[in-house]
Amino acid sequence: MRPPPESQPERPPERPLEIGLIGSGFMGKAHVFGLATAAKVFDLPVVPVFHTLADATLPVAEAAARALGFAQATGDWRALVADPAIRVVHITAPNALHKEIALAAIAAGKHVHCEKPLAPSASDAAEMARAAALAGVMTQVGFNYLCNPMLRLAREMIAAGELGEVTSFRGIHAEDYMRDPATPWSFRHDPAGGGVLADLGSHVLATAEFLLGPVAEVLGDLVTVIPRRPDGQGGWRAVEVDDIARAMLRFESGATGSLEASWIATGRKMQHDFEVYGTKGGLAFSQERFNELWFFDAADRAGRQGFRRIEAGPDHPPYGRFCVAPGHQLGFNDLKAIEMAGFIEAIATGGPEPFGFAAGARVQHLVETVAASARAGRWLAVSG
Amino acid sequence: MRPPPESQPERPPERPLEIGLIGSGFMGKAHVFGLATAAKVFDLPVVPVFHTLADATLPVAEAAARALGFAQATGDWRALVADPAIRVVHITAPNALHKEIALAAIAAGKHVHCEKPLAPSASDAAEMARAAALAGVMTQVGFNYLCNPMLRLAREMIAAGELGEVTSFRGIHAEDYMRDPATPWSFRHDPAGGGVLADLGSHVLATAEFLLGPVAEVLGDLVTVIPRRPDGQGGWRAVEVDDIARAMLRFESGATGSLEASWIATGRKMQHDFEVYGTKGGLAFSQERFNELWFFDAADRAGRQGFRRIEAGPDHPPYGRFCVAPGHQLGFNDLKAIEMAGFIEAIATGGPEPFGFAAGARVQHLVETVAASARAGRWLAVSG
Amino acid sequence: MRPPPESQPERPPERPLEIGLIGSGFMGKAHVFGLATAAKVFDLPVVPVFHTLADATLPVAEAAARALGFAQATGDWRALVADPAIRVVHITAPNALHKEIALAAIAAGKHVHCEKPLAPSASDAAEMARAAALAGVMTQVGFNYLCNPMLRLAREMIAAGELGEVTSFRGIHAEDYMRDPATPWSFRHDPAGGGVLADLGSHVLATAEFLLGPVAEVLGDLVTVIPRRPDGQGGWRAVEVDDIARAMLRFESGATGSLEASWIATGRKMQHDFEVYGTKGGLAFSQERFNELWFFDAADRAGRQGFRRIEAGPDHPPYGRFCVAPGHQLGFNDLKAIEMAGFIEAIATGGPEPFGFAAGARVQHLVETVAASARAGRWLAVSG
Amino acid sequence: MRPPPESQPERPPERPLEIGLIGSGFMGKAHVFGLATAAKVFDLPVVPVFHTLADATLPVAEAAARALGFAQATGDWRALVADPAIRVVHITAPNALHKEIALAAIAAGKHVHCEKPLAPSASDAAEMARAAALAGVMTQVGFNYLCNPMLRLAREMIAAGELGEVTSFRGIHAEDYMRDPATPWSFRHDPAGGGVLADLGSHVLATAEFLLGPVAEVLGDLVTVIPRRPDGQGGWRAVEVDDIARAMLRFESGATGSLEASWIATGRKMQHDFEVYGTKGGLAFSQERFNELWFFDAADRAGRQGFRRIEAGPDHPPYGRFCVAPGHQLGFNDLKAIEMAGFIEAIATGGPEPFGFAAGARVQHLVETVAASARAGRWLAVSG
Repeated sequence: MRPPPESQPERPPERPLEIGLIGSGFMGKAHVFGLATAAKVFDLPVVPVFHTLADATLPVAEAAARALGFAQATGDWRALVADPAIRVVHITAPNALHKEIALAAIAAGKHVHCEKPLAPSASDAAEMARAAALAGVMTQVGFNYLCNPMLRLAREMIAAGELGEVTSFRGIHAEDYMRDPATPWSFRHDPAGGGVLADLGSHVLATAEFLLGPVAEVLGDLVTVIPRRPDGQGGWRAVEVDDIARAMLRFESGATGSLEASWIATGRKMQHDFEVYGTKGGLAFSQERFNELWFFDAADRAGRQGFRRIEAGPDHPPYGRFCVAPGHQLGFNDLKAIEMAGFIEAIATGGPEPFGFAAGARVQHLVETVAASARAGRWLAVSG
Repeated sequence: MRPPPESQPERPPERPLEIGLIGSGFMGKAHVFGLATAAKVFDLPVVPVFHTLADATLPVAEAAARALGFAQATGDWRALVADPAIRVVHITAPNALHKEIALAAIAAGKHVHCEKPLAPSASDAAEMARAAALAGVMTQVGFNYLCNPMLRLAREMIAAGELGEVTSFRGIHAEDYMRDPATPWSFRHDPAGGGVLADLGSHVLATAEFLLGPVAEVLGDLVTVIPRRPDGQGGWRAVEVDDIARAMLRFESGATGSLEASWIATGRKMQHDFEVYGTKGGLAFSQERFNELWFFDAADRAGRQGFRRIEAGPDHPPYGRFCVAPGHQLGFNDLKAIEMAGFIEAIATGGPEPFGFAAGARVQHLVETVAASARAGRWLAVSG
Repeated sequence: MRPPPESQPERPPERPLEIGLIGSGFMGKAHVFGLATAAKVFDLPVVPVFHTLADATLPVAEAAARALGFAQATGDWRALVADPAIRVVHITAPNALHKEIALAAIAAGKHVHCEKPLAPSASDAAEMARAAALAGVMTQVGFNYLCNPMLRLAREMIAAGELGEVTSFRGIHAEDYMRDPATPWSFRHDPAGGGVLADLGSHVLATAEFLLGPVAEVLGDLVTVIPRRPDGQGGWRAVEVDDIARAMLRFESGATGSLEASWIATGRKMQHDFEVYGTKGGLAFSQERFNELWFFDAADRAGRQGFRRIEAGPDHPPYGRFCVAPGHQLGFNDLKAIEMAGFIEAIATGGPEPFGFAAGARVQHLVETVAASARAGRWLAVSG
Repeated sequence: MRPPPESQPERPPERPLEIGLIGSGFMGKAHVFGLATAAKVFDLPVVPVFHTLADATLPVAEAAARALGFAQATGDWRALVADPAIRVVHITAPNALHKEIALAAIAAGKHVHCEKPLAPSASDAAEMARAAALAGVMTQVGFNYLCNPMLRLAREMIAAGELGEVTSFRGIHAEDYMRDPATPWSFRHDPAGGGVLADLGSHVLATAEFLLGPVAEVLGDLVTVIPRRPDGQGGWRAVEVDDIARAMLRFESGATGSLEASWIATGRKMQHDFEVYGTKGGLAFSQERFNELWFFDAADRAGRQGFRRIEAGPDHPPYGRFCVAPGHQLGFNDLKAIEMAGFIEAIATGGPEPFGFAAGARVQHLVETVAASARAGRWLAVSG
């Protein structure tokens, strides 16, 4: 029998990054999947370690920790936050808890990744952002759709003037998970922070500013279509939040646009789309096929013009990290991995936050301004 | 300060599964990404451990081991195979080495995952399959496209009779990575096992039998379009293998079909498509948008018929493992994760191999029969 | 030599319908093509006769009459209107002339087909509608997109409850013929009646009410993007009309929606699209592929749901008049033929007008209400 | 009251072109619609006059003549052919009659338009072509799909080298009108000339040569899927013709390709598609959306490449004849109008036939060679 392999790779002493996760639902899992993938796909300066998982009760936390590969579990998120061994806290708990947990984690000197929406109110979100800034910790909010290489491409093309002067934006985020009136009342229907504008419209607002820069004025409309839902105990509970949200937008650049969000768009699973038009070109994108970006170049010669379907590939970083061949496609969890890698990189290098609490608070502020304009029935300036 | 988290989850003593990887190129990375994701996404009975990575030289292996998180590295694959601590050998080395490595690994009692093509010749592949069977080890060949939930759905629909009697199949795998005559001669052009029929056409053949059952007769045509390529040393080297492959197929069921494979289809990055027609319905699929399956149901009422775009979701296992919401989409590496999870599950449970060496040898046999029929210019029966 | 054919078909004495056409541009031609096709494709009770064509000057009119097959030509539309032999007047002259011509034609007892927009102002349009009603003549406005069999299908499906209760509408009409700032000032830029809201947005409003019934309230936004254009004489002329128009809509039914119109959407040639969502289903349509209607039926069984692409065919009248086989597709001029056939049928039978002046005035009223709400920056009720 | 219009356009004395139509089914109607449209849309040097319609019986002919606007009717096609007033004979009668009628019409000095297939056998078709050549009359066969502006564009792009050297072709024509085994036996099942290869595959062969030039060798496969069909009298009749046809093709240019035709492709209404690849670009087309051509240009810069959707417009003659604005779309009958205009133009000017009997005989010859190669199970050269 031959001897065992001849070498253990000389690597710089491994620098672990201990992660604590609070919440283990859909988004909690997505964080773990994203971290695991990021650790393999990217050349990270540190290694994320799945340290502790907290959930509402210990048994739930233990089961999740086993399944997701965390070393420890707790039914008390405060214990996790207080553990000095943990350096990063990921918050995927119910929205109502985001602020309290985040402030505690920041106070404990942790870096904090918090799922969107950061807080029910913009002032809360701003308070969180200020606390993080004061404490000098890194923060991130989970706007993972922006991590798509094709969105980065769109932004670069716009910035490089490939569309000429940008004149118009249309953004949609429509799904149908609340379409059925029999779907029970849930935290998403809580007037404090709830509604489709906050849940999905926030993505459109983030995309709008990501691509076109600051929104200056908004005029919104919020519609409650299903006025009551089962309360889960045989009765009904009134719904006050919006099932459909619309807004018209004016950007500081002079461009104008619109937003639509719906969670009752029967048949739509991920219609998170945008179109951007400029004097020299146009872009169209759908999250339904998020490995494609459609580009119309008015400089193409007559008779040969048309929207072209650009398929994601190594020409569109960081796609090449995942696959050397174009057209093979990233998945939803890969977007999450890009998000995680960016955050870890920022923590390790002290580099700029990719989409931190201040950015999250900005989105929340836009959401509130749209909602206020809907109540007022007129255009409102976006302050600040 | 609060005490540290109160519990370490009681889990059955962890059962590690030590992995050795030979080769760290495109496919080597995909294996690692797939394993890392599988370990998080699936509820595996064992935990894959990245034990040793082997590559052509030690420095290359060490760099890759660092990047991909293997504990050890070696420049000699024989050392890896000989290491008694390693239980599974993943072979993503050049095709010409597949057989030698696999036989050595099997002889050492390892389970073996080998990338396609299993071997340059069907007889070699069959020999490998026999060796594995005799040794009682688990094997797998990397036909990851078949791991797509939408392909499983297609197969189930066909098996359940949702298309009625299946009459027709059309399968394509066209890309363009060899389109440029300036692309140098490579191992893929080696007459021993090379050519687009082996490289891409094999996927079509695997899909064809996955969906419609055994192919009984074939009539092929192989075309060399670019007769010579740069040899990388300032000269030229003749190309004898096929740039385009076509075949007509007759299935044992009585259905008929066709195959086309091309690596010079300018503009195509992943046109790995199929259409299947039956007396009651039709299916259409493209790997370009592999989270969708198109279904025409002739039972839909008049005036409302049409191909419907089924988007992948939790109704299509194991999609739900990755994401609880439909329409969010899996990526290429997720298909690899499903493949890995199936293999690990089979190893841990002694369960049936998802797509083992025997299946790989079968595909290789089909490839050779198509090639032989192309040389003969007539229909040939698929023996065995 | 054989004798000549044995029979002249016994037909009821032919009932000619003498047509006078005023204007021979894009739309004038479309009328002629539509009439010629309608006469062959439909089983009309009368035969349209191309009697006289009027245009701005006699030479222009003569050339057009020759090309389009009119027996007579005139440079004076009043002569055409006064000709007692003419029974129907088609107005495709510049918008500014619509009212004067139409009132004269009505006064002369003619039936009148007038291209949209009927008049620069809703009050003018209403006056025209009243005049026609008093005179007892038939009228039509050219909203040909509504003549599409797939739009009729959409309306029938909605009316039949196939979508459940309709909750939401999104309508777009975006093209790019004004995208280039070098495109000169034209009649479309005339503040009296011009702008993209009137030109294209009117189609969205017509579609919205065609499908969902009356709009009750609107909130608009009108944007001038290109502030001046060449005046054709070496100078510039200020543009005051809208290049982009947006609006939010509330329907009497309780449904809500939105509208966008743009003539500077670079790359778009015919993005006249809509989506409609209800509690049980969804519809999506694009004029870019107007022989298709996409339908999501929430009653489809789990795992098999998806938007299905219904291709126009004989199941969707009057498609079968044009072609007995599905999927062969109608063209733009065929929609015009359907429009013409409906008008001729109404004239011959005294039947209800398909989309008469009153309907056109309604659209104009909606346009003006949207514009007024844009100026006011708030919701306005649609009176009447 | 004003005087009547002042002028009757001075036109060159009208030159009528008297048309006789034999057969008034699907294709007969399409001829009439096409002629009527052509007369308006194109600037033809002569005016088609609907002179006489012949059908199987006088009552049928009379009804059709009334509906389609022919002045006379006859139940005897020989009378029509013998009528000296008729200058052009359009044959849309059952295939079995094509030859006899065409030869009689040619003998009578008529120009002849005959629907495809020209004759059940290539030798018959060649005989017809020779007769026409000897008689000096113009002929046409109804391969209307080739009249599509987007197909002309594709041909021009190929000829201009925009794809580089063309290497590969894939052609499909799949529909589902014979999918149901209960569909009765019809003339299309007649072994003399029938089968899907003749009915639909002929279109693919015509397209293949239209785009890539002469086919040199073929290897076919013909499959009968539904072995018997109701005979319409309560019994059954055996089906001997092909329900699915496939072939591999070698072109004289050195390019290779494939063909598939099916009339049992459940769900397909008009999948008459092709893809063409060259060293510098690729084209993709589907008759399902025949106003679009997809073009990949390898010269586009990295990161911006993709198949672009070219929408038909005035840049693609003769689209502009029908509509001055792009994206409005032609319909199936418009293709027929282009076909008719080309024929009339050729008759009037003595210009070259667009797709005459010789071209039709060529297609028939290709069909027979494919069928012969299918019987032989090997490659056959296309003689002549």
